[in-house]
Amino acid sequence: MPAFGSSVPVGLAESVPVRVADPPHRGAVEDSLGALVGLVGPDLAACNRTIVERMASPVELIPRLAAHLVAAGGKRLRPLLTLAAARLCGYPDAAAGGDGLRHVRLAACVEFIHSATLLHDDVVDESQLRRGLASANAVFGNQASVLVGDFLFARAFQLMVADGSLRVLEILSRAAATIAEGEVLQLATQNDLDTSEARYLDVVTGKTAALFAAACQVGAVVAGREAAAEQALAEYGLKLGIAFQLVDDALDYAADQATLGKTVGDDFREGKTTLPVLLAYAAGDAAERAFWERTIAAGEQSEADLAQAFRLIRAHRAIETTIARARDFAAEAQAALGLFSSSPLRQAMLDAADYAVCRAR
Amino acid sequence: MPAFGSSVPVGLAESVPVRVADPPHRGAVEDSLGALVGLVGPDLAACNRTIVERMASPVELIPRLAAHLVAAGGKRLRPLLTLAAARLCGYPDAAAGGDGLRHVRLAACVEFIHSATLLHDDVVDESQLRRGLASANAVFGNQASVLVGDFLFARAFQLMVADGSLRVLEILSRAAATIAEGEVLQLATQNDLDTSEARYLDVVTGKTAALFAAACQVGAVVAGREAAAEQALAEYGLKLGIAFQLVDDALDYAADQATLGKTVGDDFREGKTTLPVLLAYAAGDAAERAFWERTIAAGEQSEADLAQAFRLIRAHRAIETTIARARDFAAEAQAALGLFSSSPLRQAMLDAADYAVCRAR
Repeated sequence: MPAFGSSVPVGLAESVPVRVADPPHRGAVEDSLGALVGLVGPDLAACNRTIVERMASPVELIPRLAAHLVAAGGKRLRPLLTLAAARLCGYPDAAAGGDGLRHVRLAACVEFIHSATLLHDDVVDESQLRRGLASANAVFGNQASVLVGDFLFARAFQLMVADGSLRVLEILSRAAATIAEGEVLQLATQNDLDTSEARYLDVVTGKTAALFAAACQVGAVVAGREAAAEQALAEYGLKLGIAFQLVDDALDYAADQATLGKTVGDDFREGKTTLPVLLAYAAGDAAERAFWERTIAAGEQSEADLAQAFRLIRAHRAIETTIARARDFAAEAQAALGLFSSSPLRQAMLDAADYAVCRAR
Repeated sequence: MPAFGSSVPVGLAESVPVRVADPPHRGAVEDSLGALVGLVGPDLAACNRTIVERMASPVELIPRLAAHLVAAGGKRLRPLLTLAAARLCGYPDAAAGGDGLRHVRLAACVEFIHSATLLHDDVVDESQLRRGLASANAVFGNQASVLVGDFLFARAFQLMVADGSLRVLEILSRAAATIAEGEVLQLATQNDLDTSEARYLDVVTGKTAALFAAACQVGAVVAGREAAAEQALAEYGLKLGIAFQLVDDALDYAADQATLGKTVGDDFREGKTTLPVLLAYAAGDAAERAFWERTIAAGEQSEADLAQAFRLIRAHRAIETTIARARDFAAEAQAALGLFSSSPLRQAMLDAADYAVCRAR
């Protein structure tokens, strides 16, 4: 464990602004996700209502804690992907069946699974902040966070069962298992500076991209689309999710705390071997490698070390390299949408991949 | 939090031997569960193989931690119930379909769900012992226990999806949500001496009996039996589960540590308002109530308090009363099997209800 608490904020002067090669105009980036939100606006509103309805429980602490996390904020990025994928695939159509709201309910499932993993992650990471607010474990305690996470996970499966598609259940139960594997692998690679970039990508794929992929894929399933469309959307989600997590890992060494909405330097304090660290370690001289071995591998950290980590990562342009990798994955995500004909929705999904790379948080 | 660690063992001299009214011969009780095990022996062996096979993961820590809990021990009581219920209902028969091993795989699902909740419970309770061995969280840490619990839960759903019965998925996903609700309710009633016996039974039903009920019910489902048989087996499991948990709560103030295979007095240290405490509190004089208010409600405990708790519970015969309640529920469980015609298997299930009440652990 680090020598100081993870709630200690980092001086803003230590943060490195993200400098992306050829960044689109900031307003354009925000508008691009906004376009996606606008195009599925009524669906997203219905999804939010379903989320609140289905958090209900006679056990009063459950909706209270869940509301703290689920109802209070977040970009709803994953349910947004389910809704967009379903509409891109023409849902509802004659083949889809149901009442025209299956994609809404499955989007809520996806958000419940995501929320359950967030609650458990924050317990595992001992996080104090989530989306700029005190994390659920900080407010309600670790015990309640573990158990309400379990409830949300179970509730997600109840919603899927009510939907009645075994194919959807297959995709999302496999994703849930893959997420847990990714999280455990992350734990196993913690403090291990010999982690390869491939293994790091396994962690990223498991803990983040698998659910992005599944969220998109089930959109195609409810629309009753053929396997090729399903696979294209799964590929889009997978690559988008990898890009998203790469940028997240870069921002933990780059963004200022107010912008990111979480404590900066968490990954460093937890000894996570994310790509910025692996790149700086690989490029470092003997003294620098000794620094990383003490702070990350041995977990011996003092107050001044985070600033030094920021300096080394900046010196080796590890943020820029990480963002460049993210940009490559975003381009692969965009390429996967080539199967679909041009439309405002397809364009908004292409733009969402730019958003993943250029977002401030 | 209590003033002393939960790993401090209690002197055996302080423990109260369970004294059940009209106990059957000890050997007979053990034999009665043994009869059930014997009657579904090949099924149980197949279930154990399935459990080991399906714990597999490329992430090496997962099977290692899971094996510590799942493969190393336990009575397999819940999968045993699924197997017995399926056979009592005539599985496999023409209506059941499949390869004759559906009940085995669903029994493994039930054990995975149970194991996931155990891993999370031990994190929530900060337990040091489980089945007489160091608990998984004590060996592998809380982080790994939370995440491997999530994995086992997801894997259980993958197994159910592969089985393909939406009815089974409905029953077990509802049970999973109910378990989480029961655990959260237990957290909410912790330290609350005004907890009513009805609310206590809600906790017991949620955290334990719901999975017993579901385990039995899915046995009837895979056998393709009518709703009446399903409901009878769900009722048997529900009442058996309540009896089982009541006895568990009694043993935490009664058994010696070596017999119980877990630290005695855990419930006291955690301020759980289980029936023995609620009964002793209700029957206590002013000084005794002040003792419970300090130790359970306010959570202020010193080394000598557990011995005093044992004395007060003994003085008010709260163990005997709790066991008597358990006996009533066991009788209701037995009555629910009246629907089925006499057979060695039915007799073994009747005897299992006696085992739940009279077991040493």
